[in-house]
Amino acid sequence: MRAHLTRRYWFSASHRLHCSTMSPKRNVQTYGKCNNIHGHGHDYFIEVTVVGPVNSETGMICNLADLDTFVNGTVIERFDHENLNMLPEFSEVVPTTENLCVEIFNILNGGFHHAAIEKVRIEETSQNSFEYTGE
Amino acid sequence: MRAHLTRRYWFSASHRLHCSTMSPKRNVQTYGKCNNIHGHGHDYFIEVTVVGPVNSETGMICNLADLDTFVNGTVIERFDHENLNMLPEFSEVVPTTENLCVEIFNILNGGFHHAAIEKVRIEETSQNSFEYTGE
Amino acid sequence: MRAHLTRRYWFSASHRLHCSTMSPKRNVQTYGKCNNIHGHGHDYFIEVTVVGPVNSETGMICNLADLDTFVNGTVIERFDHENLNMLPEFSEVVPTTENLCVEIFNILNGGFHHAAIEKVRIEETSQNSFEYTGE
Amino acid sequence: MRAHLTRRYWFSASHRLHCSTMSPKRNVQTYGKCNNIHGHGHDYFIEVTVVGPVNSETGMICNLADLDTFVNGTVIERFDHENLNMLPEFSEVVPTTENLCVEIFNILNGGFHHAAIEKVRIEETSQNSFEYTGE
Amino acid sequence: MRAHLTRRYWFSASHRLHCSTMSPKRNVQTYGKCNNIHGHGHDYFIEVTVVGPVNSETGMICNLADLDTFVNGTVIERFDHENLNMLPEFSEVVPTTENLCVEIFNILNGGFHHAAIEKVRIEETSQNSFEYTGE
Amino acid sequence: MRAHLTRRYWFSASHRLHCSTMSPKRNVQTYGKCNNIHGHGHDYFIEVTVVGPVNSETGMICNLADLDTFVNGTVIERFDHENLNMLPEFSEVVPTTENLCVEIFNILNGGFHHAAIEKVRIEETSQNSFEYTGE
Repeated sequence: MRAHLTRRYWFSASHRLHCSTMSPKRNVQTYGKCNNIHGHGHDYFIEVTVVGPVNSETGMICNLADLDTFVNGTVIERFDHENLNMLPEFSEVVPTTENLCVEIFNILNGGFHHAAIEKVRIEETSQNSFEYTGE
Repeated sequence: MRAHLTRRYWFSASHRLHCSTMSPKRNVQTYGKCNNIHGHGHDYFIEVTVVGPVNSETGMICNLADLDTFVNGTVIERFDHENLNMLPEFSEVVPTTENLCVEIFNILNGGFHHAAIEKVRIEETSQNSFEYTGE
Repeated sequence: MRAHLTRRYWFSASHRLHCSTMSPKRNVQTYGKCNNIHGHGHDYFIEVTVVGPVNSETGMICNLADLDTFVNGTVIERFDHENLNMLPEFSEVVPTTENLCVEIFNILNGGFHHAAIEKVRIEETSQNSFEYTGE
Repeated sequence: MRAHLTRRYWFSASHRLHCSTMSPKRNVQTYGKCNNIHGHGHDYFIEVTVVGPVNSETGMICNLADLDTFVNGTVIERFDHENLNMLPEFSEVVPTTENLCVEIFNILNGGFHHAAIEKVRIEETSQNSFEYTGE
Repeated sequence: MRAHLTRRYWFSASHRLHCSTMSPKRNVQTYGKCNNIHGHGHDYFIEVTVVGPVNSETGMICNLADLDTFVNGTVIERFDHENLNMLPEFSEVVPTTENLCVEIFNILNGGFHHAAIEKVRIEETSQNSFEYTGE
Repeated sequence: MRAHLTRRYWFSASHRLHCSTMSPKRNVQTYGKCNNIHGHGHDYFIEVTVVGPVNSETGMICNLADLDTFVNGTVIERFDHENLNMLPEFSEVVPTTENLCVEIFNILNGGFHHAAIEKVRIEETSQNSFEYTGE
């Protein structure tokens, strides 16, 4: 019996979408208002899904306390109340939510060992969300 | 790296569930109050999911502005504030949300070329939703 | 000790906004797409707030079962899966949500006697809501 | 054409997470506050997804009235306003939401024959959800 | 300039609605399934509203950190993952959400001095909420 | 008959909470992580409530199209995708959500004449909201 557990977290951050290898004009065409020089911000909701067998004794896929400790320590504390453009992860990569999704999946997938990381989903706004599953 | 982008839209419409090849009695058995002669309505929330590689330069699967322009032009403007039963798409097909889902998937899949359409999900009410993936 | 209880209900209905004493042109100016001849629809969420002393024995303002029975019998069954324009209440009054709010407040205020009706709030869509308190 | 229908239900229940084969100390380490002796409770939101071909005449995967009757009769009435630990299903199995998910999936999968049960998803709180697909 | 700040908290608890001065029959008539002997539970969402002048220097009504510290220390830690019926506050008072609302308002109003407590609102379920303002 | 209409808008912006007349140490004590030098951001949901008599002919308090045009032109276009600290409104006032609420109320109250502005409510995050009514 394999089940899935999804846990919801969130952080607030600012970013500016700007690609240094593209012309100013093409940056505006590509990112619109998201290219504004002073940046803007979002409340990012992060849903982490893990998958695995249900332990026959504890009845759990993994301990939520372990997942919370890991996600808070490696993701939320790192990105909360930051300007994403100033972080080393995004020094050469544009901080789109697609790239943020991949970055967070890789952090979790590389370090969390109590269950398999199946998916990271980020709601950038109430109208947009992004998912990455490591494919 | 392939990621998924889901964008949320909505429109208001009315419909009546009635199948012309079934008897009045069987229509009532099948559709209940949804068969009421004067129709009723919903706020339909449409979630369109596209899938594709994350462009290494722009950091995006596709440009949201392109997706919005296409969905608004071909779906939202077509169905918003309409009685679905009066539209040619539903002259011979009952406007259930299952059929609306298939119809919208086919419109998008046939015409949007910036990323692959993976799924159309419609919330008919806060208790019901439907998905179609082209299978 | 006076407290407030708010209970949430919903129904689906269709309507067309059209005022018979105004010209076709002014109807369009006033109601826009909501004036479309075939109508459209909404899922209306109704929040009924009652106010009163907390009974020192039962610990309740009024019995939820009594409120549900009354609201379901006089409001939800009356409006659910109907075209509002076809109902006698709206034969001479335009079925805007403002007017629907007043109509529902008056039904409840006139007939429910287990606690005072303080407010009726209707969410027409996720972006709009209306309130009436009997002023 | 195969489509998916998801229907949302809910019930309120209490539970205590405690495994009789584990020491008191390990119970606290595993379940934290959820091991409190007097129990606590949740509003469980249950989403049932069925999958199947869209009937070419009715335009439906299955009749919602049939699904509601079955789920209400076999699941909601069974668990609503109960202490899960007192039920025979959980006399030897810890009533975690993982195990509740598997239990509900098996009830529906074993008895509902109008469409295939694809997934049961339970929101335990607004921060946690669990899914089981019969794998 | 007086403004209002509302902050949202939540806890999970179980309760049983039972009034010791009423007969078993009247308890069932009054509380229905909520009178079940083994209890049931909810996720209670608590919204605390404070009101006061906006400090011309800090731009704040009061410091959120102060409010969080006080509410978490006096309310959330007290009620979270508890059976409300076992607490001294509810030894002689039925733990309805009306009474819980009054209890929490009084705790906050009596002890928090950085801004005036204007209202406590509790969502018992997604369909019900209660408010108390100290009237 | 006076009714109330609430309309929901939103914009994304970044800000940094920092008061130039306070010491660095007191800024950190007051604003915590919100004082981080690079700023952070939010999706601000703005609810504007107007109040007035229901027009007996149109059935409306005011025309939503008029309200949308005014709010979008004077508020949303002004603040969306901006760093609030760079705007003249916040050159000498800290861009807390309390102050943003007052600022938006004053813009609307001073210029919108189709109905009275009763209240501006801003959700800064899913846990916090602020209201100002012009008191």
